[in-house]
Amino acid sequence: MAMLTDLYELTMSAAYLESEIEEIATFDLFIREMPKNRDYLIACGLEQVVNYLQNISFNNEALDYLKQQGIFKEGFLNYLKNFKFTGELHAIPEGTVVFPQEPLLRVTAPIIQAQFIETYLLNTITFQTLIATKASRVVNAAGGKEVIDFALRRVHGADAGIKGSRATYIGGCVGTSNVLAGMLYGIPIYGTIAHSFIMAHESEIDAFRNYTDAFPDKCLLLIDTYDTIEGARNSLIIAKELERLGKRMIGVRLDSGDLLKLSKEVRKLFDKNGYKYLKIFASGDLDEYKIEELLKKGAPIDSFGVGTAMGVSKDQPFVNGNYKIVEVTNRKGDVIPRIKLSKGKKTLPGRKQVYRAYEKGMMSMDVIALENEEIDGEKLLEPVIRNGKLVRELPKLKEIRERCKNSLVKLPEKYKKLTNPPVYKVELSSGLKKLMEELTQKYMRG
Amino acid sequence: MAMLTDLYELTMSAAYLESEIEEIATFDLFIREMPKNRDYLIACGLEQVVNYLQNISFNNEALDYLKQQGIFKEGFLNYLKNFKFTGELHAIPEGTVVFPQEPLLRVTAPIIQAQFIETYLLNTITFQTLIATKASRVVNAAGGKEVIDFALRRVHGADAGIKGSRATYIGGCVGTSNVLAGMLYGIPIYGTIAHSFIMAHESEIDAFRNYTDAFPDKCLLLIDTYDTIEGARNSLIIAKELERLGKRMIGVRLDSGDLLKLSKEVRKLFDKNGYKYLKIFASGDLDEYKIEELLKKGAPIDSFGVGTAMGVSKDQPFVNGNYKIVEVTNRKGDVIPRIKLSKGKKTLPGRKQVYRAYEKGMMSMDVIALENEEIDGEKLLEPVIRNGKLVRELPKLKEIRERCKNSLVKLPEKYKKLTNPPVYKVELSSGLKKLMEELTQKYMRG
Repeated sequence: MAMLTDLYELTMSAAYLESEIEEIATFDLFIREMPKNRDYLIACGLEQVVNYLQNISFNNEALDYLKQQGIFKEGFLNYLKNFKFTGELHAIPEGTVVFPQEPLLRVTAPIIQAQFIETYLLNTITFQTLIATKASRVVNAAGGKEVIDFALRRVHGADAGIKGSRATYIGGCVGTSNVLAGMLYGIPIYGTIAHSFIMAHESEIDAFRNYTDAFPDKCLLLIDTYDTIEGARNSLIIAKELERLGKRMIGVRLDSGDLLKLSKEVRKLFDKNGYKYLKIFASGDLDEYKIEELLKKGAPIDSFGVGTAMGVSKDQPFVNGNYKIVEVTNRKGDVIPRIKLSKGKKTLPGRKQVYRAYEKGMMSMDVIALENEEIDGEKLLEPVIRNGKLVRELPKLKEIRERCKNSLVKLPEKYKKLTNPPVYKVELSSGLKKLMEELTQKYMRG
Repeated sequence: MAMLTDLYELTMSAAYLESEIEEIATFDLFIREMPKNRDYLIACGLEQVVNYLQNISFNNEALDYLKQQGIFKEGFLNYLKNFKFTGELHAIPEGTVVFPQEPLLRVTAPIIQAQFIETYLLNTITFQTLIATKASRVVNAAGGKEVIDFALRRVHGADAGIKGSRATYIGGCVGTSNVLAGMLYGIPIYGTIAHSFIMAHESEIDAFRNYTDAFPDKCLLLIDTYDTIEGARNSLIIAKELERLGKRMIGVRLDSGDLLKLSKEVRKLFDKNGYKYLKIFASGDLDEYKIEELLKKGAPIDSFGVGTAMGVSKDQPFVNGNYKIVEVTNRKGDVIPRIKLSKGKKTLPGRKQVYRAYEKGMMSMDVIALENEEIDGEKLLEPVIRNGKLVRELPKLKEIRERCKNSLVKLPEKYKKLTNPPVYKVELSSGLKKLMEELTQKYMRG
């Protein structure tokens, strides 16, 4: 994974080495601004970052490839042979509600190390944070009804499927269709049948019977292949047959058409025939907006399968993650804060901490402050790695999911609105503001 | 990779096995409808599909995990031990311009095999096709100026970075910042310095000098960290110093602010000082729409680095890929075409071929037909795998990129418009239409 990086991380590293720049640098990873219709984000991806930092190294194949490029000197390639991360990592734990500009990760290390890891850290944190956030919106819209991740087939490759399922589980989904994510992370897996299964048979009822014979205790039938109401009637035949065996069918899945109308009709048909226990599961191009609308209009849907829109965060397919140098300590031991003044892309200088204040148990505001300031509130950034070694046991996936749930409970409801939520208050401390002014003046003077 | 699948592929397979359904099935993989502002797509991802089909198998760890789920019988788990793909694959070659409803892949195999591979095939083809298409739009907007893929840091995980870089190269980018993609696929890699490098130094000119000392032949300087025009003046100092060493600086990179205004000012400054050879490279939240606008207004930009918007296909982050059964051959040898009638999701039945007609060397229309019909035109679907074995050498990446370029040359310009392009004519053959009518009537009757 060391080679999963932008070339400039290597050219900069080579230039640092050649210039004998051995400063200790601190970098912040943060999301610059809020995506559309979002007020909060769910921090996600730290576990993969920790694995990366603990294991990063260049193998011979990688070094040979770099040598072939003809741009790196022997000294630098030798340096890479023994490359490892020996620095320090602070992070806001996965599953925590966070906001723009807040450092989600803070890295302090010899400058080559701190710089080099940029691309991997951004790739990992921005994607998982994006998806955990999206999932939390979908789960919130479903208001207590279960949501299952169905996204694997249309997400951006294998890793997006695997890490994406992890992120949706953290964000509140009850499970995933993705078998590999289930195996790797212990996420509950879900799945029954597709249209192809129905279509492989001469008739729908034949297909239903064959599936039921194989999985009599897991019988959830897809009923929209030809005609949904006809499919519902066929599923009632199966439900009766199962009852004769002393078993209960779980229910049916709707995957197309007017889900509001169809769910009401199917519910009525089931109830009229005395099958109140049959559940209705809905899927098919769903997202948080459609789920909110369906439930508001009284759709009798018991749970949701959500795919593409959640897995690619369709309405906002990226977050603007950045990794910027905020401080260097030079060989004389002078600590020098750094700022970037590029238009619209100004950064917050200095080594920082994020403080969270609560009122009556609910989140009231955050303050981004310099680390040495004294501010009231919960400190969000925690030490994770020191001298290259883990100093804190990482939480299990279920604990992260629980943290996300608890963190969201403490966020006032108004910030969870799906469209145009108000902006949660995140202030800069007086110390940080003063430092920014000083540095801006210094660099603007040239 | 066998486990990178939806659980329902396994439950359906188990049900087929238990019902002793051993039919040969044909499935089509196609994109159902056109994404917004797109008329064409670039087929991409076949190489990874072929690797998957040639190597798919379940290891002991996977089988143990499936057993632990407690839903599969011993017979099915034993069946999986020897699972491999023994069927047939037809495909439209990577890099070909394609349209909705056209089968990009056509799989014929024993039904369990043909069904099981669905999730991986969709995940692989839809993502790479999405990104190759997006890249071709960006490259087209740049009108001959070079485009480099800078997306790795904000795409959806590692695989999206690697396969995404491959797809952008096929779509016409000249290279990527992604070192691992360069190593794996032989794509040219690009990269110089980031703002952090500038900010790690006491002054911009110090940073420029240290970078230039390390890479005197690859000197492209990032000039917008503090003040772009000041940065351009500093870069002129470096250019002069390099000339004294008998070397030429390549140019500068702008990454923020008003790129039109700044590129004009910087160009003027360079030209006035006799540095016409210095190139201007632009990056920073670019996409095809912004590039078209910049060039239309005469921005003197020589090449572009495009990141997030291309790597996640920001304006349209997915394509609606589907994999549907179109025909089964039962044990008696009867060939039975299949159709799905779900509302808005009707499928094209039967084993098909896609024919492309040309007028004066330019593409004029496509016809989707049944395989046994006689239609004029170029056949797009080619046999790739038979009896589980490769029957055609896969093209090299450069050949795929060349095919894409040539395929786009033959597509009339109007279809490449970035917004609201007209719809290219794709007809269904008379045989196919007749079959659809017959099947619709059959299933609507129940």
